[in-house]
Amino acid sequence: MSDPNDLAAFLAQAWQHLSRGVADRRAPARYPTFATVGPDGTPQSRTVALRGASPSAGTLEVHTDIVTDKVTALRHTPVAALHVWIPRSDLQIRVTAQVEILTGDAVQSQWNQIPAGSRVSYGTLPDPGTPIDHVYAFEKPAERSRFAVLACTVTALDLVHLGEQHRRAGYSRADGFAGRWLAP
Amino acid sequence: MSDPNDLAAFLAQAWQHLSRGVADRRAPARYPTFATVGPDGTPQSRTVALRGASPSAGTLEVHTDIVTDKVTALRHTPVAALHVWIPRSDLQIRVTAQVEILTGDAVQSQWNQIPAGSRVSYGTLPDPGTPIDHVYAFEKPAERSRFAVLACTVTALDLVHLGEQHRRAGYSRADGFAGRWLAP
Repeated sequence: MSDPNDLAAFLAQAWQHLSRGVADRRAPARYPTFATVGPDGTPQSRTVALRGASPSAGTLEVHTDIVTDKVTALRHTPVAALHVWIPRSDLQIRVTAQVEILTGDAVQSQWNQIPAGSRVSYGTLPDPGTPIDHVYAFEKPAERSRFAVLACTVTALDLVHLGEQHRRAGYSRADGFAGRWLAP
Repeated sequence: MSDPNDLAAFLAQAWQHLSRGVADRRAPARYPTFATVGPDGTPQSRTVALRGASPSAGTLEVHTDIVTDKVTALRHTPVAALHVWIPRSDLQIRVTAQVEILTGDAVQSQWNQIPAGSRVSYGTLPDPGTPIDHVYAFEKPAERSRFAVLACTVTALDLVHLGEQHRRAGYSRADGFAGRWLAP
């Protein structure tokens, strides 16, 4: 066990989990809860799959269908709160990120890497969230034009470790993620 | 397996998971992610423990320290989005709720039922989120006056079942939670 008073090690541990979430579909950080603020000013959240993580740049990447309500929300308030709970480490990772919605040529390389069977996540007819007459009254064609990348620039992280004594730290891009301990 | 086209059965399944979360600390619905909107208009989320669930009334209950940022957020926008993922059922439960913050005499019965060892969750010094000089520079006395109940009146639920074919339904208090199928 590393020094519990080491802010940089605590942050590195969180990024290690996030990176593992991108690489390993069974890692707990694979599926963060992604919260946004709807155009009506109320909170929304849903599971997303983590598709990219750069500890050095402080960025995360999520893929989505462009017609979903999270994109509508992000066009209104381009900020997301990502939440991950790592059971075996008793660690809560909370990320605040500024989100840019990328489409078209800017996302061609990501689209090329998506297996054909997974591309049907982008293009559901009718649009996701539309009332339908029967439980299965929809189709899932793959629609390249509906594919979007949510490029998340991390502005803050809040980590809580539920150990024998709790540890909590906050990190901000403003000071280069130096971090400081917080009362838990 | 019940009829996949049965909206009422789908909703009942979700409430069964929520109720189990209250009764069983190892059930996945024990620890929802609780999203709010901060005074600055940006999303926040954190893990909470589910302490009450009434399928008939359509209500949920969460306990908190009154000085946490989620209470500050709820005083500004009294709406929460609760999110639960049930791994073995491949079920995502999303709840939108109007939240009332109860304190004082109104929460005496709940306080009485909290074991002494758990009461230290209410009263951390300094206030949760305050910068501290050292990782463990805080105390956790039990402080009755800091204990609050978040009484959540469910206004809407959105359920997604990731089966061989996905199923998604939306339910609203406005029509007595009759529900309707949605494109997933």
